[in-house]
Amino acid sequence: MAISADTPRAAGSPAPAAAGGTHARGGPPPRYGTRPTMKDVAARAGVGLKTVSRVVNGEPGVTPDTERRVQEAITALGFRRNDSARILRKGRTASVGLVLEDLADPFYAPLNRAVEEVARSHGALLINGSSAEDPERERELALAFCARRVDGLIVIPAGGDHRYLEPEIAAGVATVFVDRPAGLIDADAVLSDSYGGAREGVAHLIAHGHRRIGFIGDRPRIHTAAERLRGYRAAMADAALPVDENWVSLGPTAPERVRAEAERMLAGPRPVTALFTGNNRVTVTALRVIARLPRSVALVGFDDLELADLLSPGVTVVAQDAARLGRTAAELLFRRLEGAGEAPRRVELPTRLIVRGSGELPPAGD
Amino acid sequence: MAISADTPRAAGSPAPAAAGGTHARGGPPPRYGTRPTMKDVAARAGVGLKTVSRVVNGEPGVTPDTERRVQEAITALGFRRNDSARILRKGRTASVGLVLEDLADPFYAPLNRAVEEVARSHGALLINGSSAEDPERERELALAFCARRVDGLIVIPAGGDHRYLEPEIAAGVATVFVDRPAGLIDADAVLSDSYGGAREGVAHLIAHGHRRIGFIGDRPRIHTAAERLRGYRAAMADAALPVDENWVSLGPTAPERVRAEAERMLAGPRPVTALFTGNNRVTVTALRVIARLPRSVALVGFDDLELADLLSPGVTVVAQDAARLGRTAAELLFRRLEGAGEAPRRVELPTRLIVRGSGELPPAGD
Repeated sequence: MAISADTPRAAGSPAPAAAGGTHARGGPPPRYGTRPTMKDVAARAGVGLKTVSRVVNGEPGVTPDTERRVQEAITALGFRRNDSARILRKGRTASVGLVLEDLADPFYAPLNRAVEEVARSHGALLINGSSAEDPERERELALAFCARRVDGLIVIPAGGDHRYLEPEIAAGVATVFVDRPAGLIDADAVLSDSYGGAREGVAHLIAHGHRRIGFIGDRPRIHTAAERLRGYRAAMADAALPVDENWVSLGPTAPERVRAEAERMLAGPRPVTALFTGNNRVTVTALRVIARLPRSVALVGFDDLELADLLSPGVTVVAQDAARLGRTAAELLFRRLEGAGEAPRRVELPTRLIVRGSGELPPAGD
Repeated sequence: MAISADTPRAAGSPAPAAAGGTHARGGPPPRYGTRPTMKDVAARAGVGLKTVSRVVNGEPGVTPDTERRVQEAITALGFRRNDSARILRKGRTASVGLVLEDLADPFYAPLNRAVEEVARSHGALLINGSSAEDPERERELALAFCARRVDGLIVIPAGGDHRYLEPEIAAGVATVFVDRPAGLIDADAVLSDSYGGAREGVAHLIAHGHRRIGFIGDRPRIHTAAERLRGYRAAMADAALPVDENWVSLGPTAPERVRAEAERMLAGPRPVTALFTGNNRVTVTALRVIARLPRSVALVGFDDLELADLLSPGVTVVAQDAARLGRTAAELLFRRLEGAGEAPRRVELPTRLIVRGSGELPPAGD
């Protein structure tokens, strides 16, 4: 970085190294509070503070010549308006907070981007973070966002009690839950049809001759996991098939647990002939277990996977539209911010069965 | 949401609907500026403003009884300290801005999460956004973050000229570039060894008998794309193999373009027998093209893919550690914020060749 003579420097900080431009940050780093102020601009341009303020805020009443002098001083000093201070005075921060489960989970990546795009179209920035499926961390993040005075909050809840947000909502923080509903408060929620999607996926396996079908899902307190299990049970009941409780396993989606459960269900004299996997994390591990078996096992997974079409067989999935979930939630949030005052809504988006091969395998060894 | 009698409401807003708790937000939504203030807390607790301030900020000089009264008033009113205002007064915002290429790209998801974790361990929140590979949008985002007075900035640059950040850096915004270096300024950068990784991947194909190897990469102005092409050329030169320029294609990673280029290179009387793909987006599309061909085509891809091990053959890749890139950049950023004043550094992380089958296929039809 080559600091030019016109660039402001901290009072008392050493001059930048002369040669090569490689030591701009040699010596003590610049300190906070060394930014040029409107007062500095006014002094350099030889005008009053009010004149600088008019130019910065695009207000009328400044001659072209004066405006040019002020703009030159702004450029020379590297002055930048402090949006945080300005925005705080106006009461809105033009920012939106998003609490999701894991920024690293590919399922949430398109949701995250979709929320960003809607926020951007409204001139708002996005603050986000991962709850890591920990209710306390969810609460901490949501309240930290509120303490920064976000205008709105989108939450993929980890916990089941959101009464802690009541004072925030009452104070005007628009709040929309996505992927899973709020607990113990009445709030907007945008969800996929987990129950209907799972029911359709399991019915698909039954239609291809399966009678012993395993269900491996996420922790039971997670709404989507419980709903998908409900869909599994409904499809089995629809076909008058009994469910052996050894075929059902809810819990963390860590590979070790999913692997152990899949191997258990697929072992013994009367193993399951098909698996319904409750989300993308579970599916990936279950596919690895199946790939090592000598016989074929049918599988339908909830959530699509990027390379699902390239595996042999292709992976049949119940897909949700993560980008649409995020977009719908963010649009609802901004409608609330613009004053839409109707009662909290629950929006349910349909899922889509994508047939690729793994869900159409016949039962092996029966 | 059931608003209790103790929850603050906007003056003049209607009382919440009585029944069922389903209409908490029926009627006009709460308006901004209706949050309880320290003054409200002081009035309710029957103490002075200074006393409330002492309790809120954990300062001494308050009797246990008074503290209890103040805490009760805080709870009853739903008062929350305004961190933005407090933080602005202190000069640091405890927030970090991250400009990446695409929040929806699975490659950046672990990087994003890693930056979040380091920020979290320093008590800082994360503001992020996608440049969409548009230099103007990168600039807009980075400056918007600076205008909110982030303490530090991590940038995956889309553009090649970062002089616009000089005033920010001079004013004390710690700035670290990741994945690609800064343009025209001297700044910290954390990169993967794109050149060395590509050279190793292409040498691997040559070692398996390939002489005609295609390279499909991202836009040539992107540092990583140019470096990987340089690695390809070096490996070919090392083996004294000529490069037909029809085998080299740089440009957008949109599926249509990649598909057309792969099909072109794989057609004709002397097609390439192997492809080296310059990043995960390119690899996914190239794999789809190859899957439809009657003959086998070897492939080594830059970047790992989640299901790469489950394809037949498994996909041989040159993997970078995206989480480590993010973690290293964020740790460097916080060292700068804590005052580390040495010259800007360039940290280069090694890549890792993961052999799975696709890169070991022999040339077909030669």
